Amino acid sequence: MNRRWTPEGEQRLALGQPFVLESGEALPGLEIAYRTWGKLSPQADNAIIVCHALTADADAARWWAPLFGPGCALDPADSFIVCSNALGSCYGTTGPTSLAPDGKHWGARFPRVTIRDQVRAQIALADALGIRSIRFVIGGSMGGLQALEWALLDPLRTQAVISVAGAASHSPWALVWNEAQRLALRADPLFRGGFYPPEKPPEAGLAAARAIAMVSYRSPQSLEARFGRERGADIFGPRAHSPDEFAARGWLRHHAKNLTERFDANSYVSLLDALDSHDLARARGSLEAALGKIHQPTLIGSIASDALYLPAEQHELARLIPNARLLEIDSAHGHDGFLIDAARFEPGVRRFASEQRSTGATPADTGAFPLRQKSLRYA
Amino acid sequence: MNRRWTPEGEQRLALGQPFVLESGEALPGLEIAYRTWGKLSPQADNAIIVCHALTADADAARWWAPLFGPGCALDPADSFIVCSNALGSCYGTTGPTSLAPDGKHWGARFPRVTIRDQVRAQIALADALGIRSIRFVIGGSMGGLQALEWALLDPLRTQAVISVAGAASHSPWALVWNEAQRLALRADPLFRGGFYPPEKPPEAGLAAARAIAMVSYRSPQSLEARFGRERGADIFGPRAHSPDEFAARGWLRHHAKNLTERFDANSYVSLLDALDSHDLARARGSLEAALGKIHQPTLIGSIASDALYLPAEQHELARLIPNARLLEIDSAHGHDGFLIDAARFEPGVRRFASEQRSTGATPADTGAFPLRQKSLRYA
Repeated sequence: MNRRWTPEGEQRLALGQPFVLESGEALPGLEIAYRTWGKLSPQADNAIIVCHALTADADAARWWAPLFGPGCALDPADSFIVCSNALGSCYGTTGPTSLAPDGKHWGARFPRVTIRDQVRAQIALADALGIRSIRFVIGGSMGGLQALEWALLDPLRTQAVISVAGAASHSPWALVWNEAQRLALRADPLFRGGFYPPEKPPEAGLAAARAIAMVSYRSPQSLEARFGRERGADIFGPRAHSPDEFAARGWLRHHAKNLTERFDANSYVSLLDALDSHDLARARGSLEAALGKIHQPTLIGSIASDALYLPAEQHELARLIPNARLLEIDSAHGHDGFLIDAARFEPGVRRFASEQRSTGATPADTGAFPLRQKSLRYA
Repeated sequence: MNRRWTPEGEQRLALGQPFVLESGEALPGLEIAYRTWGKLSPQADNAIIVCHALTADADAARWWAPLFGPGCALDPADSFIVCSNALGSCYGTTGPTSLAPDGKHWGARFPRVTIRDQVRAQIALADALGIRSIRFVIGGSMGGLQALEWALLDPLRTQAVISVAGAASHSPWALVWNEAQRLALRADPLFRGGFYPPEKPPEAGLAAARAIAMVSYRSPQSLEARFGRERGADIFGPRAHSPDEFAARGWLRHHAKNLTERFDANSYVSLLDALDSHDLARARGSLEAALGKIHQPTLIGSIASDALYLPAEQHELARLIPNARLLEIDSAHGHDGFLIDAARFEPGVRRFASEQRSTGATPADTGAFPLRQKSLRYA
């Protein structure tokens, strides 16, 4: 194991041993890019794990700033907060942009990873950091899927779970959104089935994929609020035939292009595949049985206007997880409300977290995971 | 004017004179592919105009079969039913696949057309067919936009309007759906900005665009009903890594590819542009003022699960059109409910249509458009 610091305050954990994936394939090693805020208590029992969404990175204090700060749900003054880049992503953790054993980039050859693999990598990091007990695992969107997996993959350390705008599995609806993105990416021949040279990435295809995703992340209401009744009234006026004729279209193109400057196409596909493959019930019996096994106090955040992971899915989670509570977030921003309206649900998250601490079990009570056993589980 | 028959029962109308578009540009001539069912009455007052959706054609009896037949809303026994292919499309009416004056295909050079241009072409056909009065104009989706324009562009002949799953204009939400499709199409370099040779069309890009559209046409509920809880349970089983691993994804790819075998990419963009530019209020004052001018009895069909043209938009239409009634269609199929669940709203359409006939105005009452004036309006 080798931990090194990067200039930006990001840290790296390198696990030298093979990391066996859910598929049975093994990565020869695993590197995890992560950030921490606050200090681990002497009892190593004040950790909070933050799980990020599709194209985000380990810098949770930036993309989830409203949750961070003194007295907030994520308060580095009394908690040791950890966020790591997801397996398969391109922000420092092992993924398609990493080097394969042959010294070349994995690229399209990168093995297929699952949401469980991503959580198992996060668990390996928690082990390496010496964490004995986790106050709660919190995540939104893809991170919300991961948070629920934490409850089952590390039941002893995980004291509570907060899953925002998540789901138990990818619905057919979510599947087709992602498949449309793959088709858009593949329409760009520069993608070359993933075998593109790093200096010649499939920018147009990735931009189109991101554009599709952006639609799924928002809502009719949020776009209407932002762009108002700006319709076709002007099309034969001074702005006719201008690319900025409709601000909503320009907004979409901006976000589409933006991702191409910061994300790798194979990593994007790796994460889409992880999402599509996700099923909390896999190898755990029925969905009811799987969710019934989540014994932790669980807060399920649901955004009323979410058009991707529908409120009905979170309602089902809240109904089937024995000790769950639903936090309905009245945001017009659709799925992205988990980011855009984070300030509005922070109080609910904070209240839930503090309730767990005042009434909740301590690691000793629940037989939280003793450090010495970790090698039995995660070696 | 030259009308000729095609083997499939489709007819063609060729207007030799220039057709001036809303933009001010003129097409040197106009050809309209259309079909009719039933016979025009001696008084020429039993017409029904059917307007089709984005990628459909003039064969309304095929794609809207549940509305057609004895005793149905569209009954050729007592009505003269007309449906024409839309301007800008590729099923026989002038569009990007037509020949320009230079003898080459218009392709990307085809002038920009609007929903109003499309309706004005349909009006020219009604003139040519000698129609004096139209019982009602009916359309779904793009056709629903057109039906409302009929009410204002041909107010004397149009006795009633039925607009299903339509809108007064393209909302920012609808705009970004279409823009994502353009980005997907442009990601395919074979598109070449529209300057592709007919024998080498941008199939991958068009397929990706269609995939996006298909998502917008359906709903989470419809896909769930069709594909059930088929999730990621099997991904490491016998079907692992198979392209058919998830039926929902295969379904999407099927529909995506299917369109490439029957539609032209430039025509597709021409229609997307027409949709995006649409604003019933353009040059008619406020939306309230424009809708207030629709004096005809109007039936607004709204699909509860429509994720593209939201029910709120149809509710607004029904509220602001003075003589409108709302027909809410309880379909889980989303926007495509206007096709898939046509049988479920046919009775409501039939009732509305028969009410108009029993209590409604006759052409004489309303001063319906006399034939001799047509050249003043449409020359």
